[in-house]
Amino acid sequence: MKLSKKNLDQRLEHVYDVVIVGGGAGGLAAAVYLQRYRLSCLVIEKGRGRSFWMQDLRNYLGLPSDTPGRTLLQQGQQHVLSLGADYLAGFVEAVHDEGETFAVKVKVGKQDSIYPVFRSKYVVAASGIIDRLPHLEDMQNVYDYAGYNLHVCMICDGYEIADKQCGLFVETEAAINTAFVLNWFTPYITVFTQGLCDVSDAMRQKLKDHGYPLVEAPIDRLLGHDHEMTGVALADGSTVELETGLVAMGSQYFNEYLKGLDLQWSGENLVTDSMCRTSHPRLFAIGDLKEGLNQVSIAVADGTLAATAIWREIRRASAPRRWESHLNQPDAIENGVLKT
Amino acid sequence: MKLSKKNLDQRLEHVYDVVIVGGGAGGLAAAVYLQRYRLSCLVIEKGRGRSFWMQDLRNYLGLPSDTPGRTLLQQGQQHVLSLGADYLAGFVEAVHDEGETFAVKVKVGKQDSIYPVFRSKYVVAASGIIDRLPHLEDMQNVYDYAGYNLHVCMICDGYEIADKQCGLFVETEAAINTAFVLNWFTPYITVFTQGLCDVSDAMRQKLKDHGYPLVEAPIDRLLGHDHEMTGVALADGSTVELETGLVAMGSQYFNEYLKGLDLQWSGENLVTDSMCRTSHPRLFAIGDLKEGLNQVSIAVADGTLAATAIWREIRRASAPRRWESHLNQPDAIENGVLKT
Repeated sequence: MKLSKKNLDQRLEHVYDVVIVGGGAGGLAAAVYLQRYRLSCLVIEKGRGRSFWMQDLRNYLGLPSDTPGRTLLQQGQQHVLSLGADYLAGFVEAVHDEGETFAVKVKVGKQDSIYPVFRSKYVVAASGIIDRLPHLEDMQNVYDYAGYNLHVCMICDGYEIADKQCGLFVETEAAINTAFVLNWFTPYITVFTQGLCDVSDAMRQKLKDHGYPLVEAPIDRLLGHDHEMTGVALADGSTVELETGLVAMGSQYFNEYLKGLDLQWSGENLVTDSMCRTSHPRLFAIGDLKEGLNQVSIAVADGTLAATAIWREIRRASAPRRWESHLNQPDAIENGVLKT
Repeated sequence: MKLSKKNLDQRLEHVYDVVIVGGGAGGLAAAVYLQRYRLSCLVIEKGRGRSFWMQDLRNYLGLPSDTPGRTLLQQGQQHVLSLGADYLAGFVEAVHDEGETFAVKVKVGKQDSIYPVFRSKYVVAASGIIDRLPHLEDMQNVYDYAGYNLHVCMICDGYEIADKQCGLFVETEAAINTAFVLNWFTPYITVFTQGLCDVSDAMRQKLKDHGYPLVEAPIDRLLGHDHEMTGVALADGSTVELETGLVAMGSQYFNEYLKGLDLQWSGENLVTDSMCRTSHPRLFAIGDLKEGLNQVSIAVADGTLAATAIWREIRRASAPRRWESHLNQPDAIENGVLKT
């Protein structure tokens, strides 16, 4: 059921099989499988994750390619609630390992916040990332286009960028190399650094060799209308026309709550095995938090794998259920033998 | 576009980037990604694979849990056609490695068959498996219930079996062990062997200890109505009431066309790396053909991975696209430098 400040007291004594941190595609898929394995789980979702912002989820099998990411999330939320999962809007502040259980401390409510602690045998970390966006004075001007024709994922949206005049927005020299992958889709690339990084002579030459202009002037605002970006206005008053854009400014990882645990990291990603288990035997990491492709389809498979590994472990540790012979044995069966 | 006997001649000179053998969930997902990577692919589907038979796809995120498998397949077929993939109903008889390309020989049409050969740089083997079913004299009697409440996948449908009187249909002693996993969901298990295998004394004792009757008599027919199986009629005239069933008779693998290639197998499964590449560098195996869980979500992720690996390889081997400076450079840009 949906938990809130009003009713979450009912669950504070319960030990869940699994608390899932994050109600994106991975977390919801894990919850579908866990509930169908007859395990109990709580999904804690802070809101507005990466898939929430996708205007069109164009590459997920089974959904029309104009399906917004939030439609997938709403469908998934209904799905897990119908299977008996608990779901809470809240922000996970810390996860403590208590030996047999984890204690998961959550901030609930932006005003008059409360800080309940839930307990579970396992934790699935599915809290993902969010893309960094160009920082302009008027951020609403950025939000007007981000997720529409100002893209954040080349694998997802390179197809939409194909053969268009594309602005590539970066803040490090390393990210400029994105241009030399993006050129699979379009050669009409203009690189914008906003002067946030030094650019080496070698990189300048490489851009020049490929014909990709480099614009280092600060950006005043994005131009466009109806969520369609058509160019960039620079601080010096000049403008650059564009048909689309790709932001390659890295990601913010939602993994602070895990920093107190002794885990194996690869940069900001958690290292996991083939079933998405981290170096902690009762902690799984799925989707964008772990190494690999940041794709909805991968997160959903990760949720499948983590849930299955947890089920196997809990099942094997449980006493087998016998069929007591006085209970509902078929008429034709007597003491395990067919009457004939 | 949809290919048929009438128009496939147009494609016999074309070298596809990828031929995908199998238009189930994995093959269609691979095609979605490949086409969005601007690669050309042909999906060859023999029809009536495992997901076609699923009456309710209850565990795939984003779709309501009463969605039939064939709805997913239809949506996916539309999706890949809208992206420009080719799609052919046919049966792949052989794949020959020609060095730079594969030659894929297909049987098209059950009557007046023709045997076109298509060429591609890569092959994705996505032809999957089909579950073996109890072999009764009247197979329509089995088809009436298979995929409804006579299940073939415990991970998919254990939830529906929970606490019900369940027939477990096997043909080997090893498969009887399925009962000791199935009992996570229900203890009311009756095992049917139809006398197809010897059962050791140790197994008989184990079943007895758990209270699970063993029925070795031949089955005359399944009882029920409106796709709801309610029991089993045995050849000796007695009947056993059931509320549901699980078939654990193994699978038939559609991999004959690969047997001429030098590949690493694990039983009937192909061994693959983390991107679903087999021991042949240009052949990928996804979904149920490879080792791992036989789940739609896994097949879809596999298609994502294989397509991405192929794209990376083709992209890296291609000449980079330059922006020729006379073409559409923004007004504000002159020779790669911003005019101010």
